[in-house]
Amino acid sequence: LTARAVYFLSDFGLADEFVGVVHAVIGRIAPRSPVVDITHQVAPHDITGGAATLERAAPWLAGGVVLGVVDPGVGTARRAVAFDAGEGTVLVGPDNGLLLPAARSLHPPGPVAAVRLDTDTGAPGATFAGRDVFAPAAARAARGEPLAALGEPVEPASLVELTLPVASVEGGRVRAQVLWVDRFGNAQLNVTPSVAGPVRLVEVAGRAHPAPVVRSYGDIGPGYALVVDSYGRLAVSANGRAAAEELGLRPGSEVWLCR
Amino acid sequence: LTARAVYFLSDFGLADEFVGVVHAVIGRIAPRSPVVDITHQVAPHDITGGAATLERAAPWLAGGVVLGVVDPGVGTARRAVAFDAGEGTVLVGPDNGLLLPAARSLHPPGPVAAVRLDTDTGAPGATFAGRDVFAPAAARAARGEPLAALGEPVEPASLVELTLPVASVEGGRVRAQVLWVDRFGNAQLNVTPSVAGPVRLVEVAGRAHPAPVVRSYGDIGPGYALVVDSYGRLAVSANGRAAAEELGLRPGSEVWLCR
Amino acid sequence: LTARAVYFLSDFGLADEFVGVVHAVIGRIAPRSPVVDITHQVAPHDITGGAATLERAAPWLAGGVVLGVVDPGVGTARRAVAFDAGEGTVLVGPDNGLLLPAARSLHPPGPVAAVRLDTDTGAPGATFAGRDVFAPAAARAARGEPLAALGEPVEPASLVELTLPVASVEGGRVRAQVLWVDRFGNAQLNVTPSVAGPVRLVEVAGRAHPAPVVRSYGDIGPGYALVVDSYGRLAVSANGRAAAEELGLRPGSEVWLCR
Repeated sequence: LTARAVYFLSDFGLADEFVGVVHAVIGRIAPRSPVVDITHQVAPHDITGGAATLERAAPWLAGGVVLGVVDPGVGTARRAVAFDAGEGTVLVGPDNGLLLPAARSLHPPGPVAAVRLDTDTGAPGATFAGRDVFAPAAARAARGEPLAALGEPVEPASLVELTLPVASVEGGRVRAQVLWVDRFGNAQLNVTPSVAGPVRLVEVAGRAHPAPVVRSYGDIGPGYALVVDSYGRLAVSANGRAAAEELGLRPGSEVWLCR
Repeated sequence: LTARAVYFLSDFGLADEFVGVVHAVIGRIAPRSPVVDITHQVAPHDITGGAATLERAAPWLAGGVVLGVVDPGVGTARRAVAFDAGEGTVLVGPDNGLLLPAARSLHPPGPVAAVRLDTDTGAPGATFAGRDVFAPAAARAARGEPLAALGEPVEPASLVELTLPVASVEGGRVRAQVLWVDRFGNAQLNVTPSVAGPVRLVEVAGRAHPAPVVRSYGDIGPGYALVVDSYGRLAVSANGRAAAEELGLRPGSEVWLCR
Repeated sequence: LTARAVYFLSDFGLADEFVGVVHAVIGRIAPRSPVVDITHQVAPHDITGGAATLERAAPWLAGGVVLGVVDPGVGTARRAVAFDAGEGTVLVGPDNGLLLPAARSLHPPGPVAAVRLDTDTGAPGATFAGRDVFAPAAARAARGEPLAALGEPVEPASLVELTLPVASVEGGRVRAQVLWVDRFGNAQLNVTPSVAGPVRLVEVAGRAHPAPVVRSYGDIGPGYALVVDSYGRLAVSANGRAAAEELGLRPGSEVWLCR
């Protein structure tokens, strides 16, 4: 049995004790496993935003245990699950779609085995499954227990899917969506350079802006550009300014790319 | 000597280097002890809020070293202390009441031994006891040094008490106080279900709202409810909305429970 | 080869996955090295603010690997570097001045050896050098690889300098600058008590306020004072109030000290 890292994402924020207590629970069960915080500032109950963040981070988490908790249905009949993404990476969390995009990004065929976790924990209340259900399961996986030891098997194909929006080509233009706006105001689109081709303009809310494809922020002129970002996707960016804020872009906003 | 975890709470925030430097100091003295952040976003100088947070987290921290620093009196005559809560858990921080509710939650009789830490550290100034006084003491305890090695004994009964507000029953109604509002807008009360009994209404600022006692957020209808939270207390909650914000509840607010 | 700690500062914030992914990258390369977050809330692209924070923290980081990433020029011709500060402390980051004040604080003669890191990493895009360039180099240094293994040697004297502002004495008064405003509203000045001498007043924006030099916040009366802070510098402070906010002080603000 070897200790694996636990990678932890949630919508818990950092003002309450939630994140610290989850770390404490994991540390008791798997004292040799580091716990790495991916982020805890997913907007409260924003399953799609959390899924997009985990999907981006996934390539760097392969082989570890991913603990994801954005769980508006906590305490209801939604299942608590753990599954093997297909190449040894274990994901643990609510069965609400949060974890599937990351799993498919790591291993496109999808999960190869899954179990349902017991949610009858004897805790004083049912509202903190992160502490009472998910953290113990993630810690046991991290210290080397097999998936089958964590719960009753369920069919991997029964896991709830959540599909991030997909861009389309319509009349020679690409209709894209914003997946993410980062701290620096870059608006990542669901488009790679090879799909986009030789873009010249982006159109937002009916207004077109020149936006060439460039390789770094320093290559952007006074206006906007599409930068090939660190995930290989195009992002609407400016040089030293927050493009997303200026253009009113948020996750889910529509952006047209024109040649 | 075995390495124990240090559980660290403060009002330092995360924008300054305070938390990182405390981690660095502990890491040099006790390199095998993990340092777990409980939260550092206690409101500046809010001893009561910090004490309530530590009290909630305490059951998951038993056996470790709790480092709590909310310390408006830093550099004055207030004592710096470390004490044994009664079952091996060591708490380190200013003697201003911050740590006592957590200690009593772990072991109701209260601290069994206490020492006063030396605050004459030779540091350039007296304003960062977290770094210069408390972190070294917590790290020494975490690496296994006995309490008696950390300072001069003081009488445990002399430690400054801070009592969190206690609910009362008045004329068949329960007069409760809000202990905590979490990120999701749940307002935790100082009442357990067994004390409350069959509540039907909550009254806030003279206005009554239907609020049945339920086991999870998903069981709440369009209005409000009292959810048995993960600490076994009742919290005023809504389903997918921030009840505390809607009702104007803050820590210390009064809430009446009516049958 | 022994494992050293990595001390990590950036302007990444904590809402995106940037910090977590950097931790994951370091953990794979140097699994026995703790990664300590100094702060990630440096204002976006604020090289001077980041440099001042690292300079303050530096004495507690000696002997470790300091990873600093505030990098508005990412992807451009600015160099990526690692250097030995002179007594074994390795600093890794962009060659834009961010790291030099910390290095000089640790060892005033300045860096004794430096290398340029390869930025041609094969990553999907060039915008996340923290993940692709700096984290791997810091991790390799932390697990004990010599500086020379990390890149091609460059002349230490060629590293970009950034000088924090220096106070001056003019007509018997000290003209100082604010280096930092902390969470509690203390405004640290670039002046030590020995340089300042027996100050009686501070003048801000043409208005004088009584401000004696004191040793702790508890020694401050109803107005303002100059507290000898935990770095040995004078800070404009109030007791239980945010002096910087009341006086409109920000990093870079000018403050005159009058005897």
